[in-house]
Amino acid sequence: MPYVRFLPADVCVEAPAGTLLHEAAILAGIHDLELPCGGQGTCGQCLLELVPAGRLAMACQTRVWADAVVRVPENHDVALRVVGDSHFLVSEELLPERSKLSPLCRVERLTVPPASIEEHYSDWNRLVRELVRSNAGLPVSAPLAVLRDLAAALREQQGKVTVTILESGSALDVVEVRPGHGGGRALGLAVDLGTTTVAAQLVDLEDGRVLATRTTYNLQIRRGADIISRIDYARTRERQKELRGMALETINSLIEEMCRETGTGGREIRAAFLAGNTTMIHLLLALPPRHIREAPYVPTVNPVPALSAREAGLDIHPQAVVECAPGVGSYVGGDITAGLLSTDLPTNHENVFLFLDIGTNGEIVIGNADWMVGCACSAGPAFEGAGIKCGMRAADGAIEHLEIGADGETIRYQVIGGGKPAGICGSGLICLLGELFRRGVIDRSGRFHEEPGAGRIVPCENRRAFVVEYGARTAGGQDLLITEADLESLIRTKAAIYAACSLVIENVGLKWDAISRVYIAGGFGRHIQIADAVMIGMLPDLPHRLFSYLGNSALTGAYIALLSREHRRRLVDIASRMTYVDLSSDPRYMDNYVKALFLPHTDLEQCPSVARMLRNGRRNGS
Amino acid sequence: MPYVRFLPADVCVEAPAGTLLHEAAILAGIHDLELPCGGQGTCGQCLLELVPAGRLAMACQTRVWADAVVRVPENHDVALRVVGDSHFLVSEELLPERSKLSPLCRVERLTVPPASIEEHYSDWNRLVRELVRSNAGLPVSAPLAVLRDLAAALREQQGKVTVTILESGSALDVVEVRPGHGGGRALGLAVDLGTTTVAAQLVDLEDGRVLATRTTYNLQIRRGADIISRIDYARTRERQKELRGMALETINSLIEEMCRETGTGGREIRAAFLAGNTTMIHLLLALPPRHIREAPYVPTVNPVPALSAREAGLDIHPQAVVECAPGVGSYVGGDITAGLLSTDLPTNHENVFLFLDIGTNGEIVIGNADWMVGCACSAGPAFEGAGIKCGMRAADGAIEHLEIGADGETIRYQVIGGGKPAGICGSGLICLLGELFRRGVIDRSGRFHEEPGAGRIVPCENRRAFVVEYGARTAGGQDLLITEADLESLIRTKAAIYAACSLVIENVGLKWDAISRVYIAGGFGRHIQIADAVMIGMLPDLPHRLFSYLGNSALTGAYIALLSREHRRRLVDIASRMTYVDLSSDPRYMDNYVKALFLPHTDLEQCPSVARMLRNGRRNGS
Repeated sequence: MPYVRFLPADVCVEAPAGTLLHEAAILAGIHDLELPCGGQGTCGQCLLELVPAGRLAMACQTRVWADAVVRVPENHDVALRVVGDSHFLVSEELLPERSKLSPLCRVERLTVPPASIEEHYSDWNRLVRELVRSNAGLPVSAPLAVLRDLAAALREQQGKVTVTILESGSALDVVEVRPGHGGGRALGLAVDLGTTTVAAQLVDLEDGRVLATRTTYNLQIRRGADIISRIDYARTRERQKELRGMALETINSLIEEMCRETGTGGREIRAAFLAGNTTMIHLLLALPPRHIREAPYVPTVNPVPALSAREAGLDIHPQAVVECAPGVGSYVGGDITAGLLSTDLPTNHENVFLFLDIGTNGEIVIGNADWMVGCACSAGPAFEGAGIKCGMRAADGAIEHLEIGADGETIRYQVIGGGKPAGICGSGLICLLGELFRRGVIDRSGRFHEEPGAGRIVPCENRRAFVVEYGARTAGGQDLLITEADLESLIRTKAAIYAACSLVIENVGLKWDAISRVYIAGGFGRHIQIADAVMIGMLPDLPHRLFSYLGNSALTGAYIALLSREHRRRLVDIASRMTYVDLSSDPRYMDNYVKALFLPHTDLEQCPSVARMLRNGRRNGS
Repeated sequence: MPYVRFLPADVCVEAPAGTLLHEAAILAGIHDLELPCGGQGTCGQCLLELVPAGRLAMACQTRVWADAVVRVPENHDVALRVVGDSHFLVSEELLPERSKLSPLCRVERLTVPPASIEEHYSDWNRLVRELVRSNAGLPVSAPLAVLRDLAAALREQQGKVTVTILESGSALDVVEVRPGHGGGRALGLAVDLGTTTVAAQLVDLEDGRVLATRTTYNLQIRRGADIISRIDYARTRERQKELRGMALETINSLIEEMCRETGTGGREIRAAFLAGNTTMIHLLLALPPRHIREAPYVPTVNPVPALSAREAGLDIHPQAVVECAPGVGSYVGGDITAGLLSTDLPTNHENVFLFLDIGTNGEIVIGNADWMVGCACSAGPAFEGAGIKCGMRAADGAIEHLEIGADGETIRYQVIGGGKPAGICGSGLICLLGELFRRGVIDRSGRFHEEPGAGRIVPCENRRAFVVEYGARTAGGQDLLITEADLESLIRTKAAIYAACSLVIENVGLKWDAISRVYIAGGFGRHIQIADAVMIGMLPDLPHRLFSYLGNSALTGAYIALLSREHRRRLVDIASRMTYVDLSSDPRYMDNYVKALFLPHTDLEQCPSVARMLRNGRRNGS
């Protein structure tokens, strides 16, 4: 078998003839070779240098037929920069009242009366009878290990016991009965498993308190930047296992960090609720995702049956129950149904709402308690900070808001956590694009004018870039740049979102003015400037008071569902009532998209207030 | 630590000082030392000879403090004689119609239509939709392993799949999906787990055919002949494990024999339904049984939640579902509810029925579809052939029926399977007792008269015995003897049953003539002679046409429940509607028992037809 030697790590590996260079790298323990296109050979991100020839070769396309030496370029970690802690918001108002909590795992302190000759119910039956207040008619069972200790536990402290109960599927499972009323608590985990970003919360299930929140990038990014690339990559059983391992490593690292931060142990976590799009859930569980992207676009399973943590692979109590939010179809997943939980869309019969979740995929739902239509578009990860030179997650060090003066050069910004900026998160990028356009630094196609702002424009990779902050004042010591390529990427993202919104409105036979509220969700940051999002033509030109920014609504929904059975039932209801519309098969989508590739839009009548402002701006000469 | 040497096996073992001789024997691998009294030191059956002193010591009471040599007496296997195959009946009439079978495990051949753009249900949803005919609204789930192969299986042969489904608790679990419509069958196991006798059937779950039936003695007999002794023995966690191991060894040996006989593999068995009394089920699962015999007499669990075969410990498919028939209380268990399934008592509103299940415990139920009262009495294992010198199970070689001529010496008998007799089973013992009494060989207290039958009376262990068959004509070459001690044991057994029946009738405020049918169940044999059972005063003196003999009704019930969801639900219903009456706390029980210790009864008015016959018999001088 040929030998491949990888530089600069200088690792040697024997690989069967015909092995892809990328697979040989994995064999050699080199896991950070990214395949943003999923190994399709289209993105060129996995280029390796063949030594000594100096030729470049794509690791995902080049096979090893003889001994070879290759050099892995450095700086393969652009998308994975992680700075400090995150700042997702969960609205305290959405917390169910403590007395009404019905989490996936409960710890109850009961006093079980002894049996008598007249009422000789079994130990188990007497225990279940005391649980009746909270079991809501669900069947209750227990493993043999619990039953074997039950008689002793009930008799040790005159019937006083502390009972841990899991709700799994539509049944309850008593997993622990300890004598006495001391100690015993159960923690829960809420997870938003995104294509680019994964966020998790550690929750005290007794009172609903959030003990810790963490986010990180999904390690699967190395095998594809978006859903389609990752599905393409996951062709074989082995690669499905590899991607499952990456998703688990991502989530488990968040769990470990949160446990360390709070001084708790993973085994205290007895329940997890996951919200993720259909593909991410399939990849997490190593279910083959192929048919999600092949007509007629069906997933293997939806919703996913309740699992144990052992089956799911999470580093929490092995018997913990793991539930996933139900999705609607291949491209409207459990992240959307969970997100809708945090709004009044599913319960309000009066008005029509628009719900946008903008991540790597953009998902759009229109409707109310009586009808719902959902669709999806591929937005790309730009607003999550991935694929943008200065982009980063909404974490400490991220510029989340900025303003540019009329001169196009004075810049004021706000950094999450204070201190020097390390990058710009989604909300900051929307501000930046809006301000650059508002101030005339860029034109309607996103290219730099000669003036204003010329003082900050520098050459970059044969094109031009705008310096947001100079290296002397950044955390990394390098200039924070936004390049023309970045601007194009942001415009493509906003165009995809706007095109999808306008098509779905058209499809249900409504006009923009029928919408009484617009909910915006996504991992942009703590808040986005609606004015900027409307200015760049990402959001429809409606009165700003109609917009609400939800933050990471999928995480919020997962958190609520973890704590409340009523909301878990509502989730199932949302998924079953929503109609899915496939935009990709509608030829009007591409028309809408192309028209939206300008700032704010080719057709200025779509954006009357922006058009008015542009005219005023020009009149004012600024 | 002291050494103990066991003869004649000549095994040496090191045991911690203070170890019971009986425990040391187990350490030495000697497992056939029986403790019929459960180690209470009351029965003297575990006597060992201390060598060279020649003194005897009870293994269950004597502790090892220094090196010792002990001799285990031979012939410790009286109760475990097993001859040939068994002959329990299962009435074919009780079989649910094949088209209506809803067994605990089904194999279904389905054709799942492909998805379309309009109906883009997930693979799993389309499969579940096809199952809907048979899933009766129960939730359906599947393990990840099945889901991972689902997409491929559905597409390999245009949607044709063979699906294996388990019903566990009140949910369905798809455990296998194979492409195509070939092969695939599921076998089931019905088990009657009795205190003395264990019976099992191997069933084809597709058509309900019984492929094999086997019975054997419960190996736990070595640690106690009856329920109370076994509960006493099972004081420690370790002994609970030991008894669980013995029950499993018993059932698993039956499974192995049936699989060998039918050329099948244990892994083909995907479901088991067990009927057993509450104590036997506790001991099988190593649940502590102590509180069953301590006031207020409550078991740990009843009914037992559905288990996997792995949890239960059965040598069948590890994911097979194992259900136990629900019991009513500590002394009326799942064997009784299962037995009632094979009668029309739980569905008939018109008449009042009496149901007797006579095993080591005798259980009695009176009632109909509207009300049921159940109670239990300790009958002893005599009618199962245990504890009687010539007793044996109803298996090949057992005398199941006999007649004695007017001379008290001419004997005609019928042997199960033909050939030479090896012993006498329960039905034969009832015949024998009846005939000995009818012919005047024994008096009303069960002692031998001088005449008739004197020719067959021989001395035996300082008392007397009656030779049922001489050694020259028996399978073992030894005389088949019934001793005075055996007769006393049989009379105590019949007295316990009669006393319980008469008390429960009294308790519900009825007289014997209110009973319109008497069902008799138990492992006596293929049929019992009602005339003899009435003659000895075991059964009430009612017209013989009112009696029906059910054979092993617990096994029949387990078999029906294995195959039919409707009957499984009816079982739960029976258990919940029955009122349990505790006879042991009623002082009238002992009165009734003492009065019944004569043949047929102290008070001949209780048995008018027998009294008439006795008078007639005396008049006829026979």
